Amino acid sequence: MAIEGSASETRERRIRLGMVGGGSGAFIGAVHRIAARLDDHYELVAGALSSSPEKAEQSARELGLDPSRSYGSFKEMAIREAKLKNGIEAVAIVTPNHVHYEAAKEFLKRGIHVICDKPLTSTLPDARKLKKLAEESDALFVLTHNYTGYPMVRQAREMVANGELGTIRLVQMEYPQDWLTEDIESSGQKQAAWRTDPSKSGAGGSTGDIGTHAYNLGCFVSGLELEELSADLDSFVPGRKLDDNAHVMMRFKEKDGARAKGMLWCSQVAPGHENGLKVRVYGTKGGLEWVQADPNYLWYTPFGEPKRLITRNGAGSGAAAARVSRVPSGHPEGYLEGFANIYSEAARAIYAKRNGAKADPAIVYPTVDDGLKGMLFVDACVQSSKKNGAWVKV
Amino acid sequence: MAIEGSASETRERRIRLGMVGGGSGAFIGAVHRIAARLDDHYELVAGALSSSPEKAEQSARELGLDPSRSYGSFKEMAIREAKLKNGIEAVAIVTPNHVHYEAAKEFLKRGIHVICDKPLTSTLPDARKLKKLAEESDALFVLTHNYTGYPMVRQAREMVANGELGTIRLVQMEYPQDWLTEDIESSGQKQAAWRTDPSKSGAGGSTGDIGTHAYNLGCFVSGLELEELSADLDSFVPGRKLDDNAHVMMRFKEKDGARAKGMLWCSQVAPGHENGLKVRVYGTKGGLEWVQADPNYLWYTPFGEPKRLITRNGAGSGAAAARVSRVPSGHPEGYLEGFANIYSEAARAIYAKRNGAKADPAIVYPTVDDGLKGMLFVDACVQSSKKNGAWVKV
Amino acid sequence: MAIEGSASETRERRIRLGMVGGGSGAFIGAVHRIAARLDDHYELVAGALSSSPEKAEQSARELGLDPSRSYGSFKEMAIREAKLKNGIEAVAIVTPNHVHYEAAKEFLKRGIHVICDKPLTSTLPDARKLKKLAEESDALFVLTHNYTGYPMVRQAREMVANGELGTIRLVQMEYPQDWLTEDIESSGQKQAAWRTDPSKSGAGGSTGDIGTHAYNLGCFVSGLELEELSADLDSFVPGRKLDDNAHVMMRFKEKDGARAKGMLWCSQVAPGHENGLKVRVYGTKGGLEWVQADPNYLWYTPFGEPKRLITRNGAGSGAAAARVSRVPSGHPEGYLEGFANIYSEAARAIYAKRNGAKADPAIVYPTVDDGLKGMLFVDACVQSSKKNGAWVKV
Amino acid sequence: MAIEGSASETRERRIRLGMVGGGSGAFIGAVHRIAARLDDHYELVAGALSSSPEKAEQSARELGLDPSRSYGSFKEMAIREAKLKNGIEAVAIVTPNHVHYEAAKEFLKRGIHVICDKPLTSTLPDARKLKKLAEESDALFVLTHNYTGYPMVRQAREMVANGELGTIRLVQMEYPQDWLTEDIESSGQKQAAWRTDPSKSGAGGSTGDIGTHAYNLGCFVSGLELEELSADLDSFVPGRKLDDNAHVMMRFKEKDGARAKGMLWCSQVAPGHENGLKVRVYGTKGGLEWVQADPNYLWYTPFGEPKRLITRNGAGSGAAAARVSRVPSGHPEGYLEGFANIYSEAARAIYAKRNGAKADPAIVYPTVDDGLKGMLFVDACVQSSKKNGAWVKV
Repeated sequence: MAIEGSASETRERRIRLGMVGGGSGAFIGAVHRIAARLDDHYELVAGALSSSPEKAEQSARELGLDPSRSYGSFKEMAIREAKLKNGIEAVAIVTPNHVHYEAAKEFLKRGIHVICDKPLTSTLPDARKLKKLAEESDALFVLTHNYTGYPMVRQAREMVANGELGTIRLVQMEYPQDWLTEDIESSGQKQAAWRTDPSKSGAGGSTGDIGTHAYNLGCFVSGLELEELSADLDSFVPGRKLDDNAHVMMRFKEKDGARAKGMLWCSQVAPGHENGLKVRVYGTKGGLEWVQADPNYLWYTPFGEPKRLITRNGAGSGAAAARVSRVPSGHPEGYLEGFANIYSEAARAIYAKRNGAKADPAIVYPTVDDGLKGMLFVDACVQSSKKNGAWVKV
Repeated sequence: MAIEGSASETRERRIRLGMVGGGSGAFIGAVHRIAARLDDHYELVAGALSSSPEKAEQSARELGLDPSRSYGSFKEMAIREAKLKNGIEAVAIVTPNHVHYEAAKEFLKRGIHVICDKPLTSTLPDARKLKKLAEESDALFVLTHNYTGYPMVRQAREMVANGELGTIRLVQMEYPQDWLTEDIESSGQKQAAWRTDPSKSGAGGSTGDIGTHAYNLGCFVSGLELEELSADLDSFVPGRKLDDNAHVMMRFKEKDGARAKGMLWCSQVAPGHENGLKVRVYGTKGGLEWVQADPNYLWYTPFGEPKRLITRNGAGSGAAAARVSRVPSGHPEGYLEGFANIYSEAARAIYAKRNGAKADPAIVYPTVDDGLKGMLFVDACVQSSKKNGAWVKV
Repeated sequence: MAIEGSASETRERRIRLGMVGGGSGAFIGAVHRIAARLDDHYELVAGALSSSPEKAEQSARELGLDPSRSYGSFKEMAIREAKLKNGIEAVAIVTPNHVHYEAAKEFLKRGIHVICDKPLTSTLPDARKLKKLAEESDALFVLTHNYTGYPMVRQAREMVANGELGTIRLVQMEYPQDWLTEDIESSGQKQAAWRTDPSKSGAGGSTGDIGTHAYNLGCFVSGLELEELSADLDSFVPGRKLDDNAHVMMRFKEKDGARAKGMLWCSQVAPGHENGLKVRVYGTKGGLEWVQADPNYLWYTPFGEPKRLITRNGAGSGAAAARVSRVPSGHPEGYLEGFANIYSEAARAIYAKRNGAKADPAIVYPTVDDGLKGMLFVDACVQSSKKNGAWVKV
Repeated sequence: MAIEGSASETRERRIRLGMVGGGSGAFIGAVHRIAARLDDHYELVAGALSSSPEKAEQSARELGLDPSRSYGSFKEMAIREAKLKNGIEAVAIVTPNHVHYEAAKEFLKRGIHVICDKPLTSTLPDARKLKKLAEESDALFVLTHNYTGYPMVRQAREMVANGELGTIRLVQMEYPQDWLTEDIESSGQKQAAWRTDPSKSGAGGSTGDIGTHAYNLGCFVSGLELEELSADLDSFVPGRKLDDNAHVMMRFKEKDGARAKGMLWCSQVAPGHENGLKVRVYGTKGGLEWVQADPNYLWYTPFGEPKRLITRNGAGSGAAAARVSRVPSGHPEGYLEGFANIYSEAARAIYAKRNGAKADPAIVYPTVDDGLKGMLFVDACVQSSKKNGAWVKV
């Protein structure tokens, strides 16, 4: 059951990491910290953990940071750390969306690698500017579209790329949740409050928060690019300012002489779904299905043969999955491991940078391009819905 | 484990049944015969089983029909049987779609009850005419939208009607299959040949053959009526004349002060799906999911509580399911039982007619209205797709 | 989707059938009638439906029997029907267990085929006598170990017989239910009352009622014969006279130079299990799993390859399953269809008898031998448990 | 979706950890390191990573250990580290079983906490001596029966303890795997070689390697203690020295006036099972089922109600699961998180020791007692099997 060459063991000095946002009680900050730690590639050494000074300080203390490296603002952190001999080499940005752009800018321009939560920014203009900045910077920009870190998502992508599904015809994506079924933003639920607030989240509600994940995943696995979409967005909960449900039809760009179609459904008002991300891809030779809640399984049907259950690191599971797996088949890996894979892929790229080496082409992580695509997706959804579902190019 | 008052036992003299179509080797003809027989409400006594006289005769012999009641045409059968003292009381029409209208007309106008396979007709004008005929006739017209016969579909409908889901917001329907992934109509597969031929099937391919089932089921369970739709249809297999995939967005008519939305995906080119009909309904208080391939289960989540698995005749399964069930929970019933439920519901209505009694309001079966709605759905899909997905009223 | 040569169409004059037991309200009687009717091989023409004359008469009326062929006792029916020109050719015996032997005897000795519910009898001596009678009679004796009628059970058996699993090492059987979790026999539940009464059921409770099914299925699929067993039986519900749970370890007879082992668990006090019959077989080359509640699926893992889901009539499903299937893959068949397969296999054997022909070797149904084996299994369980789990030969 | 009071954040100075065994390429060593790191409670600072000096040195280098704290033997490490001012406070022992006792002894007697892989030792006398040592030591002894770290296992235990299942009647355990289906130990597979070698593994093969896990889990969840067992062990693969399959019947000690029964099946020759640990518990009021491969789900059926799917941190999931969870429901946690929970529970107990405080009674981890029970279980299995399945007290 030994896994040779497992990705879990550091071979290099750990990367010094800072964090923006993620103070005590923040869900995604804790996730980023575990993800950074899991494979031992990072060491958290600095933070601007909250916009509230008291909370920042308290959070830093709880995390065992050197008090001198707990900052009152991301800007201060960027300036100071850039000057330190052993300053941070990378920063994780885990704030609400509207802070992403300003924060990333400060670090990118100082050559500090950025690992940023998604969506990329809260506005499309910010996203375009950030893309430009990232391209001009020598530092890496990594977006935590974490679901692409799941081994069986990598397996699916590899199978499509290898032609095992033939020419792709259909990409069906869905991401239903139920936590916003009722108006909890009005009663003080913090996560709900900022995620349903256009000034913090941007133009998309469910489309931005989860639709982008589903869209990113569909493209990641299928290798296709979207051409245009038609969307019907709703805010089912009275008074809600952003969409809480989206129905989207998609047309992909031509590839291999064929034009695939797709559908995407994202919802935060679908009782019974905790976090129901699912992607299905169908081609001329076979079909695939992957469900986030059961991430170690990939259902694969070669057309005309029985359906097969491929398990992470099990029979039929290939190199792309193995390099981001830690334990043998039958020992489930989960959300944190998938998230950690993004961090560890980034680490491998950062090591290469450190060493002036070319990054291994097998390294895969979401980039600023993926982030911009997500923003364009949200924008197109909103535009199309305003135009009563007219097809909008992305 | 005894089921009191089970629906499975006849209490009346069996109904004399004729059949149009359904000669040897026809899949759906055999299904109708089993469905008619299962609960012992019918006796097959006459047939116009094939347009080929030899095949009609041979099929009649195989089925043990009296040779004098094996007819060369449905018209001949209608005329003769109507005059017989013990002539047929009902007829099953199981031909390709383009024959439905002409055949149904002959029987309806002679007061013979019609049980007709779906879709209603191959053209919309025929459908409208048939609706008129059915309304004018004293005879019953029953459409075998068989999936509404499944007990747990009835259970789902009952739960929605009882308000257990609150106000409905979303109806997500899908019906993927894979049997037309390749161009088998060109190589002589008979089922594929007529189903992909506009002159026999009508304007819809997958939309007519299976999309109508999904649409009918979504409306049946949710109790909603469609207002308009936007569709994107494809014929992925080169040379195919009818759609083999459809993506549809839906807006339902206002009900309880709210307007639900929906999506429907039907496909015959999705490898890995044999007969993947699924319907999911979400309201303000809960969600439901039913999958045809596992028909004895209904997944129900009251918002904020754990998901529950309701099984046919098991705990939590109510009266609507029980009256169309035969065996205890844990003893699966299937497709034929569901199909038979349509026949048996029809029989109960026919018994009432015989007795000059009012039919029990608990009796439910698909009518000519459902058939016309299906035709309008197909027509709207085709129109919308031609207009690049414009919203079309139904 | 057409199934050529489907088993569902009668080619012969229907078999005249009588029934012993199965009056109104009896679960298993209704099941037998549907099973007989489903494929149109039988016509119910006579009955001794209840030991109560009024109930017998009323039941006969409800079923539409000619009153002159509704009898007060099975003996009267056997005597009279044997003399009629168009008397019954076969009889279904669906009484509680203790009546099986006496009833079967009367028909077998008059050359009337017997289709008998399981277990074979209520006592082992009766079972041995019945076996002798059945062997001496020219009539067929068919035992409705109905679970062997499921197509995917046939598929599993065929795969094992073809060597696809290699040499069998393990047969794991289980059959948990929960309906006797509480003492419902004391409060008048009729099914519970006779099934927990040794004078009607025999020496085994759960072992006889459901353990025999699991045991029969394990042997049927694996092709193995039991050599000895060690059992630990319990009556968890205070006051219950027969076992309601059994743990059994098994050693099979040597085959192919190897000795397989097995375990069997049957229980009627396991909350959450409605009818949880499951069988798993493992060999040197692969493993199989079949679950009664989802009977259209067979899980097959060739060792070292991904697990495969074989569906009834789908890809990978072979001849043994196809000949007892009616509808295409994706259209689930259930308990009644599996039960009907026993009746229809019997019908094919009876047709051969009628015609003086040799029965097709592909015809498979449970025999008096299977019934005796079941009785010996129950007896061995009871003996072993009394001896504190000592190994007992069967 | 924020989880208040999540267990994932360190509040104390990290515990200095050493490791015995676990050099490069060892599966379980890497697992322990991740588990120690995940919640940031430990810092790996010393190691005796291999009995081969070169491999030890190389492994230490790869893990970034200070070379002066990479030792040639565990004894050397224990002696030296005990004298260092900042020497290790705890040690992880991850060698093959026969080394556990000697290694643990050296650390325990120097007051260094021991976190030891299971089974406890390779011989029963060693196990008894180790229990004595652990009891005499002020240091903690923690056994990584890691499956008890899964949140939904904790949930199950809590529900049983709260009486939600009523009086327990049945505990059904199974742990099938397939990786030893063929004789891979002869062809140099290292994991297989030592695990099938009595001198390294002890008297039990599958019973020791995985049966102990299933047994531990059954007792952990049910709260019951075993009284006696009857076992039938096999070595199906020719030439194999230890059991590769075990069938076990169990009788538990009386509790609440009732005596529960159980079955346990463990196998390493069951094709199709990667790591199929499953436990089911049934009481007078309900039943539970948990499957390791899908660890975020717990199936719960209150008798007479629909089955419920309780998800980790979802509706119906309580305090015991929440305190060892990191992320919201719908975001799966896996094997490493469960394993880390053992480490983190140990850390909380070590913090209490440090602070001279009483450990929070909510802290739960497997102890030397559990380890000895596992050894007694293996011994009883072997003894019973030698005596042809006679009941053996444990």
